[in-house]
Amino acid sequence: MDFAKTLEKFVAAASVSADPAFAEGMARACEFLRGALEGLGFEVKEVRADKGQPIVLAERGEKQWPRVVLYGHYDVQPADPVEKWHTPPFEAQVKDGRIYGRGTADNKGPIVALLCALEKLFADFPALPLRLTFILEGEEETGSRALSAFLKEHGGEFSDAAFVLLADTGSPSLEQIVVTTALRGILGFELRVKGPAADLHSGLHGGPVYNPLQALCELVGSLHNADGSVNVPGFYDGVKTPADWERAELKKFPLSEQEYQKIVGVKAFHNPPGLSPLESLRFGPTLEINGIGGGYQGEGSKTVIPAEAFAKITCRLVADQDPEKVFAQMQKTLRERCPEAIEMSIELQQSSPAYLVQPPNRENSDPAQNPVLSRAFGQLENAVAAHFGTPPLFLREGGSVPVISDIKKYTGLDSLMVGLFLPQDALHAPNESFSLEMAERAQGMFYTFLRSLARDV
Amino acid sequence: MDFAKTLEKFVAAASVSADPAFAEGMARACEFLRGALEGLGFEVKEVRADKGQPIVLAERGEKQWPRVVLYGHYDVQPADPVEKWHTPPFEAQVKDGRIYGRGTADNKGPIVALLCALEKLFADFPALPLRLTFILEGEEETGSRALSAFLKEHGGEFSDAAFVLLADTGSPSLEQIVVTTALRGILGFELRVKGPAADLHSGLHGGPVYNPLQALCELVGSLHNADGSVNVPGFYDGVKTPADWERAELKKFPLSEQEYQKIVGVKAFHNPPGLSPLESLRFGPTLEINGIGGGYQGEGSKTVIPAEAFAKITCRLVADQDPEKVFAQMQKTLRERCPEAIEMSIELQQSSPAYLVQPPNRENSDPAQNPVLSRAFGQLENAVAAHFGTPPLFLREGGSVPVISDIKKYTGLDSLMVGLFLPQDALHAPNESFSLEMAERAQGMFYTFLRSLARDV
Repeated sequence: MDFAKTLEKFVAAASVSADPAFAEGMARACEFLRGALEGLGFEVKEVRADKGQPIVLAERGEKQWPRVVLYGHYDVQPADPVEKWHTPPFEAQVKDGRIYGRGTADNKGPIVALLCALEKLFADFPALPLRLTFILEGEEETGSRALSAFLKEHGGEFSDAAFVLLADTGSPSLEQIVVTTALRGILGFELRVKGPAADLHSGLHGGPVYNPLQALCELVGSLHNADGSVNVPGFYDGVKTPADWERAELKKFPLSEQEYQKIVGVKAFHNPPGLSPLESLRFGPTLEINGIGGGYQGEGSKTVIPAEAFAKITCRLVADQDPEKVFAQMQKTLRERCPEAIEMSIELQQSSPAYLVQPPNRENSDPAQNPVLSRAFGQLENAVAAHFGTPPLFLREGGSVPVISDIKKYTGLDSLMVGLFLPQDALHAPNESFSLEMAERAQGMFYTFLRSLARDV
Repeated sequence: MDFAKTLEKFVAAASVSADPAFAEGMARACEFLRGALEGLGFEVKEVRADKGQPIVLAERGEKQWPRVVLYGHYDVQPADPVEKWHTPPFEAQVKDGRIYGRGTADNKGPIVALLCALEKLFADFPALPLRLTFILEGEEETGSRALSAFLKEHGGEFSDAAFVLLADTGSPSLEQIVVTTALRGILGFELRVKGPAADLHSGLHGGPVYNPLQALCELVGSLHNADGSVNVPGFYDGVKTPADWERAELKKFPLSEQEYQKIVGVKAFHNPPGLSPLESLRFGPTLEINGIGGGYQGEGSKTVIPAEAFAKITCRLVADQDPEKVFAQMQKTLRERCPEAIEMSIELQQSSPAYLVQPPNRENSDPAQNPVLSRAFGQLENAVAAHFGTPPLFLREGGSVPVISDIKKYTGLDSLMVGLFLPQDALHAPNESFSLEMAERAQGMFYTFLRSLARDV
């Protein structure tokens, strides 16, 4: 199995889950996976849940062997803006040591690297005593609703596995791989305010009418304190200070505050007290306004008091914040602060808790953790060191992959997340690409890791 | 000249001055005016100033006759949100005694009513000894920059007129016409805030980055006190309490607070202290947010920290607030309140002081007022009484027609403003309309008033 040629075929299946126009691409991606996995001796089936995209399940190995679940997603982000691509997004092309195309990194490249590693592993050890179960979903980019519904019903069928292995996170460079130990949760809602029954002329009616835009700004503007912390009572309930080893691990991360400031291009940082700027990305919760709109937004001016306005807000939550409690407090606080003249509504858009796994032999690690997982952390550390030259950093991540929390909730399984995306990969953006050197080393790392897992049992 | 058919043609010229895409509509509106005015025996010319929209000037009558300037504007507000219109905004349609379409009220309907009245007047009195000068501009909705520049240069050419007559203000009902004695000034600006160099993923970067939407809400949310007053030092400098006769006149206004509350459809009023809700409309200054935007505004959610955001703000000013001083204070205040991590820019969009004329024989009236204007107040009072059944109220108005201050400044002329807009007209909003009964009575009123003016000299 040639990595680039195989990935080219997978990319050609234009599997954009957000857009119904790409239904054929979704079906082709499933066919690709079925063919590749059957070729490796897996038994493959497609299941559906919640009227969603098919979930590809594949199984290889005997029931009594130790079991590992391999998670990935075959759907990709839309290619828009298409005109910004230098090569056609669904025709993968190799150039200067990278393979370009939508999904080459997120998440098809890492999946193909794993398939290549498995081919070699099964050729070398046809009776490798590991039971491997692929769960490959088609809705990661749109919220994983189908997989979540499927696991709610069938999660117990995977509970005898030791852990989930996946490669859907990032690392700073080929020289420094990160194993992600936590993902932030997410609580998303839309706040709408209504004032007058219809848009009003602000000259003829300005004075006695509470302008909904003013109310929206006052409400949203009240959600942070001047020090950058979130001004909602109870928001920080359950939030723990990061462990010393986690802070130490982050210090080894090869990116200084100055370099990061240059990357994001801000005049100054503004993070809440108690955490450094880089710590606040990974260890702290946030409340972000993602969008706001109301009134006249065109050229020039229009003197209107709009009837309504809205803000889209997401909170990133850390362990052990409870999204439901945070949402209840948020609603209560906003209702208390909402002026009498204004009607307010709040629509929940998404809610998922943070995910956190503690590597063994670290301060705060969970003694109840299963022994195979505990050993696996060490084996992964060794496999990464062998193929990338340096042991991985074990770090919490700022982003959210809500399905990881759902896997934990419905199967009880923790996840081992090895980061194969690099900052240059342009995930979700035009000209997404994946490093061929990364693919090569990842194949070796997967081979060594799975080999050592099997030897270990 | 049939009122509805003529207005339909005028409305079809989609003259949105705020949007360059409507250039053809602007040209068509000028053509319409030229045709209609030449048909009435006016000499018509178009002049341009400050690279702006054409100003249509039209002249009829002999040099030695007493002169009256007739002001109007042929431009209209944008039709957004277009989807809320029940009929196409630029195809005027009559329904249930009203004519619907953008500009049917503001300001095309009153202009056409005046044209119809003139047609009848000239038919009855071909040698009516009045010199009439139309000044019809195309930038009233965007700040009257061109007309202001033109008058700055050529204002003296109109100074021998007795006054300016216009119908670009409102009345509470067909039974109670208002002659407007004051207009609020306006100070408009756009506030832009910038944070990171590009849009950022709010999961991967949320924490140390000051979200521009947050900063915008905090800044804009700081501009009012809880009691509804404006929280900008010096904002109220020069603001005077209204005269007793003005408060008494307002009490005669046939609209109770309860009725007004129902019309605007608000749960409660929220006016600053010292003025009643209805007084705050006419006698008090305001700061209104007319539009706000930034980040993701589409369906669902997108977890982004946008690079920038904006708010469009206008203040309505009363006599004797100084727009320049208010703007200086506004800038100073916003700069002081702008957080370090955020770049802020403020672009002035419009600035014009309030206008105030005192009718004769009232407390505070100006003894230096010219005798023709003084008599004209009485003649207008009679013409209104004859055609609407009740004498008009002389009241200050909440809206702004900045050019009225400029006319005063550059020509020395005061303005007689007769209100033909009704509360149901939905000015600046979807489904703008104009009452056909109002059009009918207005034609009679214009006829009688101009006739009595001519007889008087």
